[in-house]
Amino acid sequence: MKSDLRVGVAGLGTVGAGTVRLLQENAGLIAARAGRAIKVTAVSARNRELDRGVDVSGLVWHQDAVALAHNPDVDVVVELIGGAEGPARALAEAALGLRKPLVTANKALLAVHGAELAAVAEAAGVALGYEAAVAGGIPIIKALREGLAGNRISRVAGILNGTCNYILTVMREEKRDFHDVLADAQALGYAEADPSFDIDGIDAAHKLAILAALAFGRPVDFAAVHVEGIRRVSALDISFAEELGYRIKLLGIARETGAGVEVRVHPAMVPKTALLASVDGVYNAVLAEGDFAGTMFLQGRGAGAGPTASAVVADLIDIARGKAIPVWGAASVALSDRASVPISGHVGAYFLRLMVVDQPGVLADVTAILRDHGVSLESMLQHGRKPDEAVPIVLVTHETTEAAIAGAIARIAELTAVLESPALIRIEPN
Amino acid sequence: MKSDLRVGVAGLGTVGAGTVRLLQENAGLIAARAGRAIKVTAVSARNRELDRGVDVSGLVWHQDAVALAHNPDVDVVVELIGGAEGPARALAEAALGLRKPLVTANKALLAVHGAELAAVAEAAGVALGYEAAVAGGIPIIKALREGLAGNRISRVAGILNGTCNYILTVMREEKRDFHDVLADAQALGYAEADPSFDIDGIDAAHKLAILAALAFGRPVDFAAVHVEGIRRVSALDISFAEELGYRIKLLGIARETGAGVEVRVHPAMVPKTALLASVDGVYNAVLAEGDFAGTMFLQGRGAGAGPTASAVVADLIDIARGKAIPVWGAASVALSDRASVPISGHVGAYFLRLMVVDQPGVLADVTAILRDHGVSLESMLQHGRKPDEAVPIVLVTHETTEAAIAGAIARIAELTAVLESPALIRIEPN
Repeated sequence: MKSDLRVGVAGLGTVGAGTVRLLQENAGLIAARAGRAIKVTAVSARNRELDRGVDVSGLVWHQDAVALAHNPDVDVVVELIGGAEGPARALAEAALGLRKPLVTANKALLAVHGAELAAVAEAAGVALGYEAAVAGGIPIIKALREGLAGNRISRVAGILNGTCNYILTVMREEKRDFHDVLADAQALGYAEADPSFDIDGIDAAHKLAILAALAFGRPVDFAAVHVEGIRRVSALDISFAEELGYRIKLLGIARETGAGVEVRVHPAMVPKTALLASVDGVYNAVLAEGDFAGTMFLQGRGAGAGPTASAVVADLIDIARGKAIPVWGAASVALSDRASVPISGHVGAYFLRLMVVDQPGVLADVTAILRDHGVSLESMLQHGRKPDEAVPIVLVTHETTEAAIAGAIARIAELTAVLESPALIRIEPN
Repeated sequence: MKSDLRVGVAGLGTVGAGTVRLLQENAGLIAARAGRAIKVTAVSARNRELDRGVDVSGLVWHQDAVALAHNPDVDVVVELIGGAEGPARALAEAALGLRKPLVTANKALLAVHGAELAAVAEAAGVALGYEAAVAGGIPIIKALREGLAGNRISRVAGILNGTCNYILTVMREEKRDFHDVLADAQALGYAEADPSFDIDGIDAAHKLAILAALAFGRPVDFAAVHVEGIRRVSALDISFAEELGYRIKLLGIARETGAGVEVRVHPAMVPKTALLASVDGVYNAVLAEGDFAGTMFLQGRGAGAGPTASAVVADLIDIARGKAIPVWGAASVALSDRASVPISGHVGAYFLRLMVVDQPGVLADVTAILRDHGVSLESMLQHGRKPDEAVPIVLVTHETTEAAIAGAIARIAELTAVLESPALIRIEPN
């Protein structure tokens, strides 16, 4: 058996502590599978006194994460600090610069600085593992980078943020409003005190940027991701969606359109029969379409100490086994320059909900505007009548362009009978 | 860029031709991802004249598969001949003996001779890839062997045979009987002229033996798999299952029970809300439970030229990238000797359907026998009454042992009012 693989873990939050615990609890099994023992030799965190429920006695303690990378008894650095800048970035650059393999769960770091870090890793000839950065318990990085490596991928779509999926699930099941459910989720620890990172779609966008880079063999490009969160999703629209045979999910979608690659995160309506529609609660799921493999669907736990630690350790075992896969699935020089297309180029069907004063002629005005913008309707929904009061009208369009629907909505919003900003939700066919 | 990886493909059926086509069509993309070109240099098949819809001109043709392994212009051998013995086995042994990596889609070969082939591969220090042997388009081998490598697995359960799943799906949707649907499936090419390999569960059992070996780190042991097929599943039981909130699926299940590992293939009732219940038609799916990752679920195309070729090429790209993972996830010496437990040790709930003469006292007799064997009932179903005619009675038990229910059924079958052999289907909780 080869010599031990000595690991330094920086960041001892839930995931860091979980990783140390996993490496301790399953040490025998991991050594058998990796062909050598994988041992934590050093850790780094701010507060040495905190009880993290895991035994760190006997481990070298570094106040400074970069010092951990320089520790000669550390062969591999695990970065679990988080954040695209600051100590996480400094540690990542230090480790790779020292030609030490890096394993990270840091989606922000990868999404924002992944291209330059990959170049450093490639030059150093060491691995950069980030299975834990996307959908923790689901080996989606491995599935795309290795499992589907022979395929031309046409689409990747996923539920990438458990907090949003939990909130949307509870809103639907309990017919409650967003702010109400968010407050509960915060109380239960499913949402952060400052939830904007999750509910505004940033977290999902970081993950989608990573998946899109892998799937389409392009340098990672967070700036190209169109991002909308779930703050504007209402219980009313969820209930209309149900009636029309849809579920509302926060999806991350990267798709080849012919003109380039669309990369977008937004609430979307998916048919109830679609695989992604059935993914409820804190679960994550990813669907990928390959030209030879067909549609592949993976579901599992996206976050939490256990699933994320499992992904970190999978990367460590790969490194212990001596595996070397290019960071983005191909050498930097072999990545494509396939362009991203802006959301204005999106073509699809739309759900549009207006609050209008129930008076004669409103619908004629609305439909005339849609007609003028070349938008045709598949269906319309209005329940009951309340003359001169506000009522919701739901319109589902046939396929049209984002530019056309945006133009129509701008004009519809100006009608005096239209009372609030119209709700618009893109429909994903599956 | 490194020198080309030169591939010899033995067997040019649908999958063989698909593999050659995939390597040709996506050659550029594959070279970028693998870091070197992957080129077919030689093929072997019986009939040279057959048009397979793929260009094999310019390739060396071997009548004898073993000769292909000896070809010095072949670096890696792809075995797509099929069958546990004969030319497939001879080729596999020859290739590994010559220290050439082997990629195969042959589940029978792996299930029956996988332990000895792994020993040869290990001694030779070369890879033996078999992603294509189980659930083609789903990278389940990679997910278990690498993605969940840090986890202690407690259960793997899957829909592993598309033909059976297709037949059961059509039986349910169209309320038709087994033989009727099988005949249609044969006409459509979804089932073989001799369908026994699929419908008697052998194919699923080969695949399950492979998954069980990987999941539990044990030498592959096909003989330990308990196998029942779907011939005895009736439209009547499918309809009762629906009424009780279940679906009937042919499942392959490997589970740690405390006493050892249960490895079984049989029709099972799963709650409609379970992930596996929603997998219809020719799709395959596998669920795995890890102690840290939690439940992971993968669904995709299990068979056909495209998905299987995709898996073969994923293995080839791994080999081109220089990856070396132990065949069964750990070196032979590190595999465990955890025992298998026979089906008689199974503990679970059961669905039992009897055809009885509708006369007073029958139910009293049946329930008395169940009581005598310590089997308690969760629910009972009987529709209408037809005095002195045959009526179905359905009983759902609480958890009990296979020995207890088998003993009870043997006695129930002897009752004169019980008209045909009772139908018994195991219930899987999820």
